[in-house]
Amino acid sequence: MKNELKVYNSLHRKKEIFKPLHEGHVGMYVCGPTVYSDVHLGNCRTFVSFDIIYRYLKYLGYKVRYVRNITDVGHLENEEGSGEDKIAKRARLEQLEPMEIVQKYSNGFHDMMRIFNVEKPSIEPRATGHILEQIEMVQEIMDNGFAYERNGSVYFDTLKYAKDKGVYGELSGRKIDDLIAESRDNLKNQGEKNHPADFAIWMKASPEHILRWNSPWSVGFPGWHLECSVMSTKYLGENFDIHGGGNDLKFPHHENEIAQSCCNNSTDEFANYWIHNGFVTIGKEKMSKSLGNIVTISSAVKKYSGQVVRFALLSAHYSQPLDWNDKLLEDCQ
Amino acid sequence: MKNELKVYNSLHRKKEIFKPLHEGHVGMYVCGPTVYSDVHLGNCRTFVSFDIIYRYLKYLGYKVRYVRNITDVGHLENEEGSGEDKIAKRARLEQLEPMEIVQKYSNGFHDMMRIFNVEKPSIEPRATGHILEQIEMVQEIMDNGFAYERNGSVYFDTLKYAKDKGVYGELSGRKIDDLIAESRDNLKNQGEKNHPADFAIWMKASPEHILRWNSPWSVGFPGWHLECSVMSTKYLGENFDIHGGGNDLKFPHHENEIAQSCCNNSTDEFANYWIHNGFVTIGKEKMSKSLGNIVTISSAVKKYSGQVVRFALLSAHYSQPLDWNDKLLEDCQ
Repeated sequence: MKNELKVYNSLHRKKEIFKPLHEGHVGMYVCGPTVYSDVHLGNCRTFVSFDIIYRYLKYLGYKVRYVRNITDVGHLENEEGSGEDKIAKRARLEQLEPMEIVQKYSNGFHDMMRIFNVEKPSIEPRATGHILEQIEMVQEIMDNGFAYERNGSVYFDTLKYAKDKGVYGELSGRKIDDLIAESRDNLKNQGEKNHPADFAIWMKASPEHILRWNSPWSVGFPGWHLECSVMSTKYLGENFDIHGGGNDLKFPHHENEIAQSCCNNSTDEFANYWIHNGFVTIGKEKMSKSLGNIVTISSAVKKYSGQVVRFALLSAHYSQPLDWNDKLLEDCQ
Repeated sequence: MKNELKVYNSLHRKKEIFKPLHEGHVGMYVCGPTVYSDVHLGNCRTFVSFDIIYRYLKYLGYKVRYVRNITDVGHLENEEGSGEDKIAKRARLEQLEPMEIVQKYSNGFHDMMRIFNVEKPSIEPRATGHILEQIEMVQEIMDNGFAYERNGSVYFDTLKYAKDKGVYGELSGRKIDDLIAESRDNLKNQGEKNHPADFAIWMKASPEHILRWNSPWSVGFPGWHLECSVMSTKYLGENFDIHGGGNDLKFPHHENEIAQSCCNNSTDEFANYWIHNGFVTIGKEKMSKSLGNIVTISSAVKKYSGQVVRFALLSAHYSQPLDWNDKLLEDCQ
């Protein structure tokens, strides 16, 4: 290896010397897009940032297996796990089959990656491509006593996990006591769950829900967090080197991924290094669809080339916020 | 609709007036590539030909759902269903994970489609993305009495199907009596099968076979023909309009698809129109990897643009053979 590499590990909140599990090889998993609409600049920053990390690891001489998934089922409208499936909703609105929506917005995503000269990952697995493996993982979690069934849905028992393992919330800094306190206000919304911090790993489909598969518990679909536990370990092993994604995925997505994976895992190790990238902001406010302040890629590349926009996306350290404005683009140009 | 459309229906060996099942809508399924190596010109002709058919149907005013799959498991070296899995073999040779092979050659295939300006299909499902559905179809075929298990593998009972349904071989023109006659010579090679015309719909994986999933019969993988029965009916319904592919797929692939689908299907109808495209030949001999006379895309587009090569691929009627030579390209230029 040419140089020693130091990375800021979100899990331990400090810089650490990078040591791969297997000499000369790196396994890296990055949470990819949910393909229910056009990606915007905020989404793209993640993939451009990890493109640099991927290229730099290869430059250092590592053989890298870079897995970046496509989420095409299970991501519900509200991040705490309620509402309609994002893909299914869009399919209803556009009067298309859900898989036509997946194809349309995956194509769009790939086109954007080409504009920004982002290298393709080694493997790009889809959540719907791993339903069998997800059903098997749900069963395994239940067999290990960390999940329970309610009316055809299966929930992860977060409290039991925290108690047995002595830790939950290490990555995000959330304390289980706070979650318990928060939960008092939310008890009325917890539905079938024993505790509001519990989360669905398999959901029974309502009659109108068309993204559905047979399972031992119900005709339904996997919970959003589960896919990444399944696909990362399938292609990189139970314990692997780097897990990345946007800062907003730390909680609940990545925290719950750790819980799901470690409750089944003999070593209690999942990803050794967690890398999170900062938001793109507009006037210091996070760029997001829900705030309505997104910059579409087509508008971004109208005035400047993809190369200039890429450079602008890389102009701050990946872990820091990046404020998007005309001056930044002019300077980069 | 602007014009009446006539198509040569391979199933009935004659031109027929095209009438879709649902007014104004067309469902079309085309067998896509097995992504274990670079596609060559012979492969590309299929996708360029169906691109024209897809565009023409849309031009006529139809709303078309065009499904073109990616085969990433189950296609064995020998077309009759023996030998190593093509993807797994390539993974062994290139020292990569099978899904890295799938990604690499899917990317290459998509790049070629872009060079030839082939529109993307509405849905591009992968065989490994439908393992659960394939396991369920195997079970259904067994429940209907058209398949039997031997040592963890499951075989389709072709003779029983031909006897019960009164027809097998309609598409390819093969007669079941000839298959029985052929079989006398092959009895020694039939292995676990009751009859050489039977074919595997689930195969038990040998210990070194790494593309494998749990099933009720064994840790194994689906037979090649099964994926297209599953993915066509999942996205287009049990009975749909058009099924296409290269001429070489008529037997055994398409014939066995029909048998698998119709034995489970209440109406005995599968695709209403079958469209097959002719081979690319070199000096009248079929262009194929096994004959070693392939023209790679990179060599084809070295001297002429993608547009010229596309035009050359379309210079004969899609159902006829197309002889590839310098004069053809000069004329097209």
